[in-house]
Amino acid sequence: MSGNTFGQLFRVTTFGESHGPALGCIVDGVPPRIHLAEDDIQVHLDRRRPGQSRHTTQRREPDTVQILSGVFEGETTGAPIGLLIVNEDARSKDYDEIKDKFRPGHADFTYLKKYGIRDYRGSGRASARETAMRVAAGAIARKVLGAGTDIRGAMVQMGPHTIERERWDWAETGNNPFWCPDAETAAAWETFLDGVRKSGSSTGAVIEVVASGLPAGLGAPVFDRLDADIAKALMSIPAVKGVEVGAGFGAAQLSGPENADEMRLDADGTPMFLSNNAGGVLGGISTGQDIVARFAVKPTSSVSISQRTVDTNGENVEVATKGRHDPCVGIRAVPIGEAMVACVLADHLLRQRAQCGE
Amino acid sequence: MSGNTFGQLFRVTTFGESHGPALGCIVDGVPPRIHLAEDDIQVHLDRRRPGQSRHTTQRREPDTVQILSGVFEGETTGAPIGLLIVNEDARSKDYDEIKDKFRPGHADFTYLKKYGIRDYRGSGRASARETAMRVAAGAIARKVLGAGTDIRGAMVQMGPHTIERERWDWAETGNNPFWCPDAETAAAWETFLDGVRKSGSSTGAVIEVVASGLPAGLGAPVFDRLDADIAKALMSIPAVKGVEVGAGFGAAQLSGPENADEMRLDADGTPMFLSNNAGGVLGGISTGQDIVARFAVKPTSSVSISQRTVDTNGENVEVATKGRHDPCVGIRAVPIGEAMVACVLADHLLRQRAQCGE
Amino acid sequence: MSGNTFGQLFRVTTFGESHGPALGCIVDGVPPRIHLAEDDIQVHLDRRRPGQSRHTTQRREPDTVQILSGVFEGETTGAPIGLLIVNEDARSKDYDEIKDKFRPGHADFTYLKKYGIRDYRGSGRASARETAMRVAAGAIARKVLGAGTDIRGAMVQMGPHTIERERWDWAETGNNPFWCPDAETAAAWETFLDGVRKSGSSTGAVIEVVASGLPAGLGAPVFDRLDADIAKALMSIPAVKGVEVGAGFGAAQLSGPENADEMRLDADGTPMFLSNNAGGVLGGISTGQDIVARFAVKPTSSVSISQRTVDTNGENVEVATKGRHDPCVGIRAVPIGEAMVACVLADHLLRQRAQCGE
Amino acid sequence: MSGNTFGQLFRVTTFGESHGPALGCIVDGVPPRIHLAEDDIQVHLDRRRPGQSRHTTQRREPDTVQILSGVFEGETTGAPIGLLIVNEDARSKDYDEIKDKFRPGHADFTYLKKYGIRDYRGSGRASARETAMRVAAGAIARKVLGAGTDIRGAMVQMGPHTIERERWDWAETGNNPFWCPDAETAAAWETFLDGVRKSGSSTGAVIEVVASGLPAGLGAPVFDRLDADIAKALMSIPAVKGVEVGAGFGAAQLSGPENADEMRLDADGTPMFLSNNAGGVLGGISTGQDIVARFAVKPTSSVSISQRTVDTNGENVEVATKGRHDPCVGIRAVPIGEAMVACVLADHLLRQRAQCGE
Repeated sequence: MSGNTFGQLFRVTTFGESHGPALGCIVDGVPPRIHLAEDDIQVHLDRRRPGQSRHTTQRREPDTVQILSGVFEGETTGAPIGLLIVNEDARSKDYDEIKDKFRPGHADFTYLKKYGIRDYRGSGRASARETAMRVAAGAIARKVLGAGTDIRGAMVQMGPHTIERERWDWAETGNNPFWCPDAETAAAWETFLDGVRKSGSSTGAVIEVVASGLPAGLGAPVFDRLDADIAKALMSIPAVKGVEVGAGFGAAQLSGPENADEMRLDADGTPMFLSNNAGGVLGGISTGQDIVARFAVKPTSSVSISQRTVDTNGENVEVATKGRHDPCVGIRAVPIGEAMVACVLADHLLRQRAQCGE
Repeated sequence: MSGNTFGQLFRVTTFGESHGPALGCIVDGVPPRIHLAEDDIQVHLDRRRPGQSRHTTQRREPDTVQILSGVFEGETTGAPIGLLIVNEDARSKDYDEIKDKFRPGHADFTYLKKYGIRDYRGSGRASARETAMRVAAGAIARKVLGAGTDIRGAMVQMGPHTIERERWDWAETGNNPFWCPDAETAAAWETFLDGVRKSGSSTGAVIEVVASGLPAGLGAPVFDRLDADIAKALMSIPAVKGVEVGAGFGAAQLSGPENADEMRLDADGTPMFLSNNAGGVLGGISTGQDIVARFAVKPTSSVSISQRTVDTNGENVEVATKGRHDPCVGIRAVPIGEAMVACVLADHLLRQRAQCGE
Repeated sequence: MSGNTFGQLFRVTTFGESHGPALGCIVDGVPPRIHLAEDDIQVHLDRRRPGQSRHTTQRREPDTVQILSGVFEGETTGAPIGLLIVNEDARSKDYDEIKDKFRPGHADFTYLKKYGIRDYRGSGRASARETAMRVAAGAIARKVLGAGTDIRGAMVQMGPHTIERERWDWAETGNNPFWCPDAETAAAWETFLDGVRKSGSSTGAVIEVVASGLPAGLGAPVFDRLDADIAKALMSIPAVKGVEVGAGFGAAQLSGPENADEMRLDADGTPMFLSNNAGGVLGGISTGQDIVARFAVKPTSSVSISQRTVDTNGENVEVATKGRHDPCVGIRAVPIGEAMVACVLADHLLRQRAQCGE
Repeated sequence: MSGNTFGQLFRVTTFGESHGPALGCIVDGVPPRIHLAEDDIQVHLDRRRPGQSRHTTQRREPDTVQILSGVFEGETTGAPIGLLIVNEDARSKDYDEIKDKFRPGHADFTYLKKYGIRDYRGSGRASARETAMRVAAGAIARKVLGAGTDIRGAMVQMGPHTIERERWDWAETGNNPFWCPDAETAAAWETFLDGVRKSGSSTGAVIEVVASGLPAGLGAPVFDRLDADIAKALMSIPAVKGVEVGAGFGAAQLSGPENADEMRLDADGTPMFLSNNAGGVLGGISTGQDIVARFAVKPTSSVSISQRTVDTNGENVEVATKGRHDPCVGIRAVPIGEAMVACVLADHLLRQRAQCGE
């Protein structure tokens, strides 16, 4: 379908299904002489990996990445980097139950309508499993961006429960299974999500990604605005239904003077912004402030509660998902969101260097 | 910057600044033998044109479009379609006031940081004036989609004031200057916006675009999902800060069973969805239901209220915009949003035909 | 058909038919702050313009170019550059004679088969007239490459008559109507081409383009090799049937030691090549030597000698072209070939800067 | 370098070095429900594989391909197809001899100049080994084109020795190690190449590829002409220095009436061409006749005869290649050339279907 490539200059192409022999990725356009080892990638894959707490699926996905090309004696060579993750748990268990049914909220119906054929094993290409390769590519993107750039994600809402922004502490995101920057809210989410899981249901979430340390000037208006490419990147993650930058939908409620970020010179005479409703992007170009994006993840569609649907034989049927699934896919979406933002930024860093020099 | 092309197969490339001699556009990839005349485009440009009520800027922009190529004896030939709009009101009035100042909320600062040069006349390339060509391209996209497809936009929120969805009537969008589908709310907005305008301020808005009559199967996962491309398309419109599809950010608050759209066979035995939280897209592919997207427009940054900023001489200064500007740019964003969605859909219609046949 | 864009970062999109109202072009990705005026472009258009000697068509095509965007106060701004040439001689004269006939060697048959519709006025989009915009874009590409780069073309063969390479003098290319670098051969061609023209026939030619002053390192293997992109660029010119780089087809006859360019250090200790069979490209990447490409142009298909063909009514008919046409389109192909090579080089210069820095 | 993707809709991205752990490829955009098995690909890889006669290198490259995704129960699913070939003979033998020397005719110098780093083991990414993945992708392209299309290659010149076209017999290409369609010439080449090999030298060649059974209408002028894309495809093969279509460089010597292919109605009243100097392409669009392209392959640069060069330490040195290499890389270029033409045609078939329907 030619839709499996992302980016113009930092260019990621992925393949692989949930139950195929392997997932793979080619990252092309990486500048040469960057130090890169499998560990640099593995550390981010491990953050995405399921089974790290009772709140994510207990499937076994070690997700061990191999670098197959593009690195020589520990440094990138400028040649395309091939990555591979062998699917160790890829045996097709019994999918007879769902192979003919369109599970509500899943892509079963649309894949069959589009292609006339559907790999029903674990959702095939539509499985969130493909996101492992996004995270791997994102790890390389971080290397391209360099040590001065920091891209961090946090869950700011689970179901109807939002964090308190005054309590935001990045360090806390490592202390709870939700990447929640607010310890108090994280504790409440534990209870909430236990209830959701036990009832066989699921819940949605909102994730915030913040990129710090980037120069002003990234973005290619009028169509390839930095925020437009971030919007596409995040909306392309499975289960994402909304994206916003800076004040986002909240900006609709503001007046012009409330929304526009005023400027003043700082002590060194450097222009600074007095607020960041823009989320670090003006006219589609980075301002040098933090880039702030949020995205909404719908609740996991795989639930053990029975739902009405139809099957390929033209019958009205019921379907419920057996086995263990993530009660909140938003949790694992945090490193994925970071990775996608990293890919967009690396791409635009190279684009900016191409047109405007360094 | 190579960022002025949109789409893969239905491919739109634009140029032109606010105060240059003309705006232009090349639409490549249009199927041959489609009836197309300048009037087909002009009717949509006229909907975007300012000065149609007291609620939009009174600048004179007749925006008369010329077709320069790609049409022969009233039909498209398959060759690229060149479009031109001469800027009739393009004389550079006195921009001395702002040429050295970074207006808050505008792209003045970022364009200068990116390019090291800035066309300050009416914001240059960053002017919303470039969107005229998006509307023109969208008119051609509608022709590609055909008469069975309907793409309509409506304002659903102005500032903090939302419509009542139970009163939604598409016919009403033509009866008020806001494209508001709820007559009662439209009346309230008149009063609200008069107040905003008289105070020299501005307000944001939320627009909803609905595309009906499309087949299932459009979209190219995993990256070029239909909703991802819509998100990019809408976020690339000047002043847009958020995009959502279907239940959008609201989906974060739902449980899986609440959110997933159940299915049943209709009277003819055809599968139908019992709700549309998905907004017509599952797994990045159209379901055949209405495609529903919303986007948030920030309040116009040009206000006559003085704001703090800095200038290119390294001085702290104040700036206020003289002259008349749209108190709510969201109004004119309605036909622009429709156009961008039309372009995405036409592109994916051709992409689907390429890969999967007709 | 989406095939009207050339280049990745230095990106040229063109439109326009022979007898439409205008030809146009958008050049996107141009670095900012390059001095650019219409004269910089016009000088190259004038070199391509017909009617400069008795050896080219006497049609009137003043080809006056206008810059419509992307330049502010004499410098590029980084925004897309819109160019326009109004077709002054665009009245459709009587094409009844050929509107239903497929002229041998022309694209009449294939355009109709592809699109099901054909703009028969002066070949429509298939007219060599579209190359005016290639030359215009090439003039901007030269500006991107900078003053240190020189891209020059010369005709090295007309019909069966080749130049003597020992007599090569670039200065001579301006002294005859053929861009011939060998004065003696040019004189012989005058006589030859007069004969061809008077007999109502036409002849082919071979053009050589040499680019000097470029750094080593340009080209993006494995597919976007510099020589591969040059091959595409030159083969995309109307009437071109072959392209070669360096020793070209002649390399097939050589042994490895004869063909491989040996190296030695020059007086300064800098590596130098002792020959240039490679034509300045090894492994798809520029070596720093002159880049040397040649392309073969077929004889003009429009001749006044009657030929057998069929028409759209399914009849066997005869056709001959009335009016004056170029007896050797290769002449005007010289500045076009230069322009296409310039576009490829500018694109790869930006690509190299993107990936590897400056 | 982002140059490792080929094609717009039938889209091939490759990775892998000569001595890395594996070669890989992602083919995206393949239509669904095409029967595809590893054997369909392996048969073509086996044709390219070295060591099949004394005339090609004796390196051991079994080149066993695995399909890792995009195929389900024997049919393509529309998802990207991941291919992998593990490098079984990938141990880095002693490359100390050449790691610091720029071998004449090789890409050693240019890779180092471009990237500032070079994987010297077996030429790294610049190794012809990458072409295995082109052949694999080409096998899938053939499946997309369908059984009615036939793409065949033949060597028509080795060193200075050309075939006799009157003796052309496609069946003969399978009866000699050179893909030579002329049995008598093949016998003479045996003797010639034995001499070349024994002297430690090498020789160039010219290959012809003919594609039969394609419809008229393929190609996307003005830049993405079918012949322009074929030219790029063939020139992107390592060691190729020239490409021509139809009469090619020979067309430069013809007169218009000699060159233009006249037409007549055949017995069924269908338009037919009376010759094929066009090589099956007019105006960049296929005519429905055989598509005929030729390309020149330079002699193998690796020879055992000592040559002058420089090294990275700034010394004048001599270098000769040890070990066995192909005395005529043109032999193995035959299936590679076929594969590249197949990829171009599959891509344009999908492009044509996208724009003009079926």
